[in-house]
Amino acid sequence: MNYKKYKKFQTIKLKERTWPDKEIQKAPIWCSVDLRDGNQALINPMNVDEKIKMFNLLVELGFKEIEVGFPSASQIEFEFLRTLVDNNLIPEDVKVQVLTQARPHLIERTFEALEGVKEAVVHIYNSTSILQRDVVFNMSKDEIKAIAVDGTKLVKEYTKNFNGKVYLEYSPESFTGTEVDYALEICEAVLDAWGATGEEKVIINLPSTVEMDTPNVFADQIEWMSSNFSNRDRVILSVHPHNDRGTGVATAELSLMAGADRVEGTLFGNGERTGNVDIINLAYNMFSHGIDPELKLDNINKIIDVYEKCCKIPVHIRHPYAGELVFTAFSGSHQDAINKGMKKYMERGNKYWEVPYLPIDPSDLGREYEALVRINSQSGKGGVAFVLESHYGYKMPKKMHKEFGAVIQKVTEKCGEISPKVIMDKFSEEYLAIEEPFKLVKFKVEDNDNIETEGNNTKINITVSYKGEDKTFKANGNGPIDSLKKALTNSKLVETTILDYAEHSLGEGSEAKAAAYVEVKRTDNGNATFGVGVDSNITVASIKAVFSAINRLYK
Amino acid sequence: MNYKKYKKFQTIKLKERTWPDKEIQKAPIWCSVDLRDGNQALINPMNVDEKIKMFNLLVELGFKEIEVGFPSASQIEFEFLRTLVDNNLIPEDVKVQVLTQARPHLIERTFEALEGVKEAVVHIYNSTSILQRDVVFNMSKDEIKAIAVDGTKLVKEYTKNFNGKVYLEYSPESFTGTEVDYALEICEAVLDAWGATGEEKVIINLPSTVEMDTPNVFADQIEWMSSNFSNRDRVILSVHPHNDRGTGVATAELSLMAGADRVEGTLFGNGERTGNVDIINLAYNMFSHGIDPELKLDNINKIIDVYEKCCKIPVHIRHPYAGELVFTAFSGSHQDAINKGMKKYMERGNKYWEVPYLPIDPSDLGREYEALVRINSQSGKGGVAFVLESHYGYKMPKKMHKEFGAVIQKVTEKCGEISPKVIMDKFSEEYLAIEEPFKLVKFKVEDNDNIETEGNNTKINITVSYKGEDKTFKANGNGPIDSLKKALTNSKLVETTILDYAEHSLGEGSEAKAAAYVEVKRTDNGNATFGVGVDSNITVASIKAVFSAINRLYK
Repeated sequence: MNYKKYKKFQTIKLKERTWPDKEIQKAPIWCSVDLRDGNQALINPMNVDEKIKMFNLLVELGFKEIEVGFPSASQIEFEFLRTLVDNNLIPEDVKVQVLTQARPHLIERTFEALEGVKEAVVHIYNSTSILQRDVVFNMSKDEIKAIAVDGTKLVKEYTKNFNGKVYLEYSPESFTGTEVDYALEICEAVLDAWGATGEEKVIINLPSTVEMDTPNVFADQIEWMSSNFSNRDRVILSVHPHNDRGTGVATAELSLMAGADRVEGTLFGNGERTGNVDIINLAYNMFSHGIDPELKLDNINKIIDVYEKCCKIPVHIRHPYAGELVFTAFSGSHQDAINKGMKKYMERGNKYWEVPYLPIDPSDLGREYEALVRINSQSGKGGVAFVLESHYGYKMPKKMHKEFGAVIQKVTEKCGEISPKVIMDKFSEEYLAIEEPFKLVKFKVEDNDNIETEGNNTKINITVSYKGEDKTFKANGNGPIDSLKKALTNSKLVETTILDYAEHSLGEGSEAKAAAYVEVKRTDNGNATFGVGVDSNITVASIKAVFSAINRLYK
Repeated sequence: MNYKKYKKFQTIKLKERTWPDKEIQKAPIWCSVDLRDGNQALINPMNVDEKIKMFNLLVELGFKEIEVGFPSASQIEFEFLRTLVDNNLIPEDVKVQVLTQARPHLIERTFEALEGVKEAVVHIYNSTSILQRDVVFNMSKDEIKAIAVDGTKLVKEYTKNFNGKVYLEYSPESFTGTEVDYALEICEAVLDAWGATGEEKVIINLPSTVEMDTPNVFADQIEWMSSNFSNRDRVILSVHPHNDRGTGVATAELSLMAGADRVEGTLFGNGERTGNVDIINLAYNMFSHGIDPELKLDNINKIIDVYEKCCKIPVHIRHPYAGELVFTAFSGSHQDAINKGMKKYMERGNKYWEVPYLPIDPSDLGREYEALVRINSQSGKGGVAFVLESHYGYKMPKKMHKEFGAVIQKVTEKCGEISPKVIMDKFSEEYLAIEEPFKLVKFKVEDNDNIETEGNNTKINITVSYKGEDKTFKANGNGPIDSLKKALTNSKLVETTILDYAEHSLGEGSEAKAAAYVEVKRTDNGNATFGVGVDSNITVASIKAVFSAINRLYK
């Protein structure tokens, strides 16, 4: 690898910086560039219908600034903006933003497209980096600055005859590769040409058009810019991070700490090359720290659905907050911790969300708890118990987890991931449907307070089919399980001890059944196992459970 | 959105920090955890064959430390390690690393699995965060510390009877949610229990098990730890970042600036939930700054191929460095800048790579230049010209870009993205295959130095089929194009002016053809167009080009 062919771009080094001591305190002004930067990077850009769907979603999510395209450069984008206007699709409190190069005929066409818009951001840009000045434009610093200033004046000129309110946005494109003092000089010239004031602010948008360094370097650049404007109050300082180095989100966050007021980005980070910063990710990051994200993100599945249909790009299964697997644990120890953490969180009625391995509560995104734990060969007994409980309501006693966990482990080592249904089917096969060698034919249980032997006040009379023959046994005991055990002992067919017992309702209301769990040990060889019984009658459930265990022991 | 349900975990605030003034100077010790953390988060974990493929890839890429699993917890992982040993698949200079909880029977089983390994890292961990101590373990600080210390002693004990060299790694799991002074206390106790020294270093691995804050906070935690060890020299300080907040790469980078020596991560960021830090991304980031990444990453397509087959997880099209679209520009202005930048880079023979919108040269990853520019409705004339040149060798004169760009724009507005072949087909249809209304039947050109009229030393005799009839015309001119133009003027069928002309070879060697471009204007209506001719004879190519233009003008 010929790494010597590369060098790092050298920019400002702050002597004193304040941003590392800061924390993000509130959401920035969000600006979606899905319909422009996002769209222009799609293999198949959105058609007008898809753009309208995307626009409506963005409005619904609460974006108040939406860049809708580059109408002077593309007939489709021109028509799309006209459709928004002519069909009254732009809410009162939403500004549409349009990008244009600072050339007379393009600005004229841009204002044609905007006709009838109440509040618009006209976004002009030109590239200012050392590299682009040299290889693309072959222009001096003054010539490049003149493009920005002349463009500003032109927009100002057109604004005079425009019926709506126009805000100016200026981007020194490829800012990260521009000398900061020169970038400041151009921005100041633009601010002056517009006549920006504290009341009539201008958006100065500083893009990491290409991400060129670690995110702290961008934060330094932003802090330098933010603290060196002649009048910071006349500037809305915006950032537009890309993700070439995989650090777009961090870059946005550190630049907010460094003084930025506004972030341009897209849903799920769509955009040129590696994409723009992912606003959804940023917003959930804030949310997880108790900061109002000022976006309505409580239905992530719907957002994904519209996004994937419009952009024809999948959201990756590991995409922060949104991916299919990001709230899922396969590994045993994680499942166990989630299981315990969720129980404690519920029990204690905590004010604050705190569950291991879950930075936020998936239900806040509209996701189900069911997917928290999925079962494959990496999973443990706790995970299996969690799935059985969360999907089917069976709360196995803790002692039983290991026994059934081992049963499932054998399946997953062969088959890979298995669904909750397969787990339930295996549970039924192992515990509920086992009727050999002993099949319960009928029984009668009488509870009687006045029964002769104190404590043994339950009388049982039971018929069992064994090797094709029905046999009937009787006994008295302390409750149905005990009397059943004694009856079976009387039968001489089995000799057992009851080790453990638990029972709970399955479901709610009068339709609810009971699930009973009984751990039984064979006296002869010491083997022990659980059995499970389900019935609408709690006595029957526990008797079935004993048969289940005995059949497992004597099969 | 009920954001009030969340609060930020409060950790150390450094009063003075040095990391924001640092730059990454060299690659850390890389440790791949693809076969453990990566594998345990797969829907369908790798089987032994897939693990061997992955292991061999990791060795080939140059990893010297590879975590191969948790052999005491999983039969498959046990067998996999035995396969590596028994088949001599572990190179001399590669350490295999195994994870285990610090319990006697698990450590015993771990050493069984390691039998025959020459150099092993035994990696023990226990969870130390405030939250996990409370809801999962219900243990005091001292009890948690004792787990770590007892585990260390046990590993030390087993090491005595082990034939290879054993290095200890200890992770205070969920470090980011642990009080730093307590984390330090446990780590120091582990270091003491092992008897770590400057010669016998221990790897202290600090995971952001769950990413909980902006990456600068983790960097502060790392700098605090790094500068507070009683003897920094006996520690190899390792980090293990996850990506829950989408900032795993930034977290790793800032922690390297803050003093970390070693990074655990995976290819393409596979791993629990949102994944581990992506080592490929980190390594290319370093590469792009002129730092030897100490990994061999010159064939990204092969890496992706093995990864996708083993993990059954796709690499996203926008994944930094590796995604299908990350070196592709669809938008006109980007295509233009890339085109100009690439030309300047080649012409100047620059020492350093510098091309707009391309942080690294795709050929350094084994990617083709052909995909740099792809054409859809967002693309411009420059992009179309780039594709035609890079795929088919046609170097259209600059003046012709607009004309053919408009032809292609109409196609893309209907069809979306189009392939280079469709562009070439359209080019042929428009320029090369056009034989109406004038079809060249035959011609003869004589160049003669002694010809009567000075300057008009080329004589042409040409036969044209027009409306089904062959007609022959003659003229003298200054070269073949001029004489042809005059002959056609003599014919009274057309009246034209030649505006521009260019010609170049297509391909190399004696088989090479020439492509000629001629811009012709109709004298009557002022319409102008280019024509293109291709032939192995340069004269014939230019004559064909004139016919192509005239046919376009008179069709």
